[in-house]
Amino acid sequence: MADMTDTGEKDADNIMRIMVATDNHLGYAEKDAIRGEDSFRAFEEILELAVSEDVDMILLGGDLFHDSEPRQSATHKCIELLRRYTFGDKPVSLEILSDQSACFHNTVNQSVNYEDPNLNIAIPVFSIHGNHDDPSGFGRLSTLDLLSTMGLVNYFGRWTDLTKLEISPILLRKGETQLALYGLSHIHDARLVRIFKDFQVTINCPKESEEDWFHLMVVHQNRADRGPKNYLPEELLPAFLHLVIWGHEHDCRIEPEVNAVRDFYVSQPGSSVATSLAKGESIKKHVGILEIYKTKFNLKPIPLQTVRPFVFDSIDLDEYVDELDLASGDASTKVHDFAQKRVEAMLEEAKTMLTGHLKQPTLPLIRLRLRYTDEQHMFNTIRFGQLFDTRVANVADVVKFEKLIKRMKTGKINVDKDAMQRAMVDNVARVEELLDRYFDEVKDKNPLKLMHAKALSEVTYRMVERSDLDAAESVLRFYNEKAVEHLMDTLPALENIDDELNNFRLRNKVDDLLKSLDAYTLKTEPNVSVVSAIATDVNLSAAPATASRPARGAGRGRGSRGRGKGSAAAARAPSTRAKPQLDVSVAKTGSSAGPQGLLDVSKIGRRSRAPITYTVSDDSD
Amino acid sequence: MADMTDTGEKDADNIMRIMVATDNHLGYAEKDAIRGEDSFRAFEEILELAVSEDVDMILLGGDLFHDSEPRQSATHKCIELLRRYTFGDKPVSLEILSDQSACFHNTVNQSVNYEDPNLNIAIPVFSIHGNHDDPSGFGRLSTLDLLSTMGLVNYFGRWTDLTKLEISPILLRKGETQLALYGLSHIHDARLVRIFKDFQVTINCPKESEEDWFHLMVVHQNRADRGPKNYLPEELLPAFLHLVIWGHEHDCRIEPEVNAVRDFYVSQPGSSVATSLAKGESIKKHVGILEIYKTKFNLKPIPLQTVRPFVFDSIDLDEYVDELDLASGDASTKVHDFAQKRVEAMLEEAKTMLTGHLKQPTLPLIRLRLRYTDEQHMFNTIRFGQLFDTRVANVADVVKFEKLIKRMKTGKINVDKDAMQRAMVDNVARVEELLDRYFDEVKDKNPLKLMHAKALSEVTYRMVERSDLDAAESVLRFYNEKAVEHLMDTLPALENIDDELNNFRLRNKVDDLLKSLDAYTLKTEPNVSVVSAIATDVNLSAAPATASRPARGAGRGRGSRGRGKGSAAAARAPSTRAKPQLDVSVAKTGSSAGPQGLLDVSKIGRRSRAPITYTVSDDSD
Repeated sequence: MADMTDTGEKDADNIMRIMVATDNHLGYAEKDAIRGEDSFRAFEEILELAVSEDVDMILLGGDLFHDSEPRQSATHKCIELLRRYTFGDKPVSLEILSDQSACFHNTVNQSVNYEDPNLNIAIPVFSIHGNHDDPSGFGRLSTLDLLSTMGLVNYFGRWTDLTKLEISPILLRKGETQLALYGLSHIHDARLVRIFKDFQVTINCPKESEEDWFHLMVVHQNRADRGPKNYLPEELLPAFLHLVIWGHEHDCRIEPEVNAVRDFYVSQPGSSVATSLAKGESIKKHVGILEIYKTKFNLKPIPLQTVRPFVFDSIDLDEYVDELDLASGDASTKVHDFAQKRVEAMLEEAKTMLTGHLKQPTLPLIRLRLRYTDEQHMFNTIRFGQLFDTRVANVADVVKFEKLIKRMKTGKINVDKDAMQRAMVDNVARVEELLDRYFDEVKDKNPLKLMHAKALSEVTYRMVERSDLDAAESVLRFYNEKAVEHLMDTLPALENIDDELNNFRLRNKVDDLLKSLDAYTLKTEPNVSVVSAIATDVNLSAAPATASRPARGAGRGRGSRGRGKGSAAAARAPSTRAKPQLDVSVAKTGSSAGPQGLLDVSKIGRRSRAPITYTVSDDSD
Repeated sequence: MADMTDTGEKDADNIMRIMVATDNHLGYAEKDAIRGEDSFRAFEEILELAVSEDVDMILLGGDLFHDSEPRQSATHKCIELLRRYTFGDKPVSLEILSDQSACFHNTVNQSVNYEDPNLNIAIPVFSIHGNHDDPSGFGRLSTLDLLSTMGLVNYFGRWTDLTKLEISPILLRKGETQLALYGLSHIHDARLVRIFKDFQVTINCPKESEEDWFHLMVVHQNRADRGPKNYLPEELLPAFLHLVIWGHEHDCRIEPEVNAVRDFYVSQPGSSVATSLAKGESIKKHVGILEIYKTKFNLKPIPLQTVRPFVFDSIDLDEYVDELDLASGDASTKVHDFAQKRVEAMLEEAKTMLTGHLKQPTLPLIRLRLRYTDEQHMFNTIRFGQLFDTRVANVADVVKFEKLIKRMKTGKINVDKDAMQRAMVDNVARVEELLDRYFDEVKDKNPLKLMHAKALSEVTYRMVERSDLDAAESVLRFYNEKAVEHLMDTLPALENIDDELNNFRLRNKVDDLLKSLDAYTLKTEPNVSVVSAIATDVNLSAAPATASRPARGAGRGRGSRGRGKGSAAAARAPSTRAKPQLDVSVAKTGSSAGPQGLLDVSKIGRRSRAPITYTVSDDSD
């Protein structure tokens, strides 16, 4: 705040104060007797902070809920907290300037909640959705839609048409400060990158001179490079932004980092509750108070006091062979005793994380990862956890063994274990990526009969990442309808149906199919018979087929009973889709980086290296 | 309304006007492409009527939702409708006089929504829960809890402690009229009757002279006699009531009927959407405008205009043997053609049900029930339905065959089919009752090993009636914990554990167990090993055991492999629980029935024949 004084801050009336938080994952481990309240406790602390810090609004970066259809208990607790902390007589000092119907969806009044004459809002909450609480299931609704319709949350950046993106910012003014808030709710990374590269992304800038606005964007995507098409490269975002609030990544990197290519800042607040016992989740958790004055900003990190202590450690046992004398005697016991001492030390470290906050749970999360190559070094981890029965929150999985794989053996069975291994070792973060890679490996030897691997991958993504229990039904039925359409178009003889279905699989443009899938809902009548006809594809025992290049292995493993005809050629036409011509229509003139702590982004040089088409149009209002 | 003029109604300020509706079953058949919107359409019409009739409040009798954890789409649509129709600037003219924290639960402000300074309510909605939307699942929440916490509904009559009932009315005043509104949300009928008979039911009457109040109760129970303990006899309700609004029963009997024993009136509005193709659902659906002036009331039925036409017919084919000449030739075809003509006539009848309302769906529901004894009279009902493909809403089940069972054969297999048949024919309405009767039949020959049949029945009830998917987990774990407690108490030798568990099953007071079950939630840690040990009980192949009286049949059927020891005596101690002494502490003096149309219940004679203890205490405020 001291920095603000010399930049013309006479009174608080001109500075916008925003509580920034993300990935609250309400309802995570809700049934766990010990950890069940953790997500709600942290979220309540955030709301308390918003009140005590007297912010103008709260900005959430997605994954407010852990499940796309959370249990009613989680939704209920969230409603209760929002009503308790965000309603009241405090006047909201943010004037809204944009066309609200363009920014908000599914609200009864198509307006921000604090302009609803029937509600008395003190602190408006703005949120995009994440991958955990995105619209899914019957009716394609996010829990944020419920909260929005109730008037508890202003849900923005919601996309239903995934063939193109048109992002209209919410325009807010407080005194001399004008904020253009761009929301990009979660879209499957691969699809988002495809939209960026295949289509024009339209970002509607405010009419007035864009220098008069602070351009803030909030996204919920992979930020770390998790393989091609598996993250959103920061460079795809436009250079006129001042700051990007990045949700989805759970490790706290809230201090703004400059992106060298685009010259905007990125702040990654991280989750408020650990949903996995990974290293990133053990970094101290923060939220931030974002202060904006004209085009200057300051982001003050606030450490959360009620988060359960979590200590993570990782050991490569091969490095301890000499120190622990593992080559001789009972190596397992030696490793066990070593691990026990290590955990004791970690428990000591956990004590240093106690904040003294009355609501902070004291029982810590402890995770010791032991990487091994020699199975002789392993011990029973369940029994090990019992040693710390009353002292850790996660008794069942204090120690986790992880095999360091050095090389693979060769062997042929129906599910090609080699291909699976190759797919696995290559730093796979998500199960659908694993599927992609596996079917890429085996596609010539072991193709699916009707369904394309990408469609199966889509099912997996929806079921695993989005907890969308209707995914299999929805995707299979959609795929099936398309297959039936194809048969109706080609009208093959009865004995040729199998071949024609194989042709369908090979010919159809899976990407195009998947694109139109998003517009598809379960509203159609069930067609059980054909769905079951597809079912043979789903268990991974596909029929042998003539491959366009020779299969790498010779023998065929146990239990693989070929049922298909295997007559269709497996050769696939090379992709001939034209890449759109890329050009850049957003450009800015130079300036330079401001001092640390108070970043004057308006002075930062902006180079236009973006290999992407943005159409920057006037805002409709 | 003409009736009101001569009873001192000078202005509308003294008459309370209440929209009465029940069993809206929002979300019923939500995924059905044709019928999916039916429940919401009718509910919207009710809300529109509430606005156009300018009522003071809406009173719902339970089962607002069809599922205890409805899909988000259903919850969302309900929220949207309530926000659109019940919020606004119209002042609420009902003064609340009672202690609100005693009447309302789970509301943030422990108050009616229209007194919440942060909400602008025009028409308050009051609701109890039904069997479909009662608190269940993790956290034991009803969707009404969500709506209540949002401030959309005033949820009352919610019981968590089912060992006793203490009903405090909501006290409301409008001018000269004072209303005491008693809510009794759904409780499993058998349990409710048990509570009435085992314990004192406390009903807190208003402090002031009870003649100054109109006593209105809303319940959601079986009203029709569906077997002992399977309905709430009207006589169990206190005589000082003026009117009971009865939910749960779907056939519309909205015209108030006097109960001869208690001398109160009962109005049964019925459902607003047909959730089964039973005769009762084909009765024209209504809601009511209840007008109350002091202790007089008038209930004006309003037919709903947007309900899908539904025609039901039933034929006993045996009565048509001569007319249709079924004794010779192709009886099946003859019945088929007869049915087809009948359905054509029903379709004509359905046309007379069209109201002309723009939102009314025109495709009717048609159900022709054909009762038969001779299977030669049957035909393919699926193919039959296809004849009316584009003309009915329920193509799949236009015709339903129902076997008239005249006598049973005798035969012994593991699942005693005879016992099952005997249990089935006796007018069984619910599956858990079927279970009860079945196990009652076979208890000596074929007892369960650990679990009592009543516990299994409880599981079934929760899963089927309340769609509570956690029921099996919850009840089994609870039962298991009690069994383990018993083993820890008795500490049998290893080889005697089976016997001791059998003893546990026989000895434990199942009723008491089930009572405490309601206080039990899933918050405890899972104990997978023992749950699986119980699993053998759940598939109905229990071990043979020595019976205290000879089994009726001799042979033992196929596939029954006894696994238990069968050594414990199956004799059960006769129930020795003392019946509480019954007396009546509510008594009123005589009066006589008022004229039809306007019923002055204050003049009706009240006899105190109730074999039940009510403690009528002063209201706390």
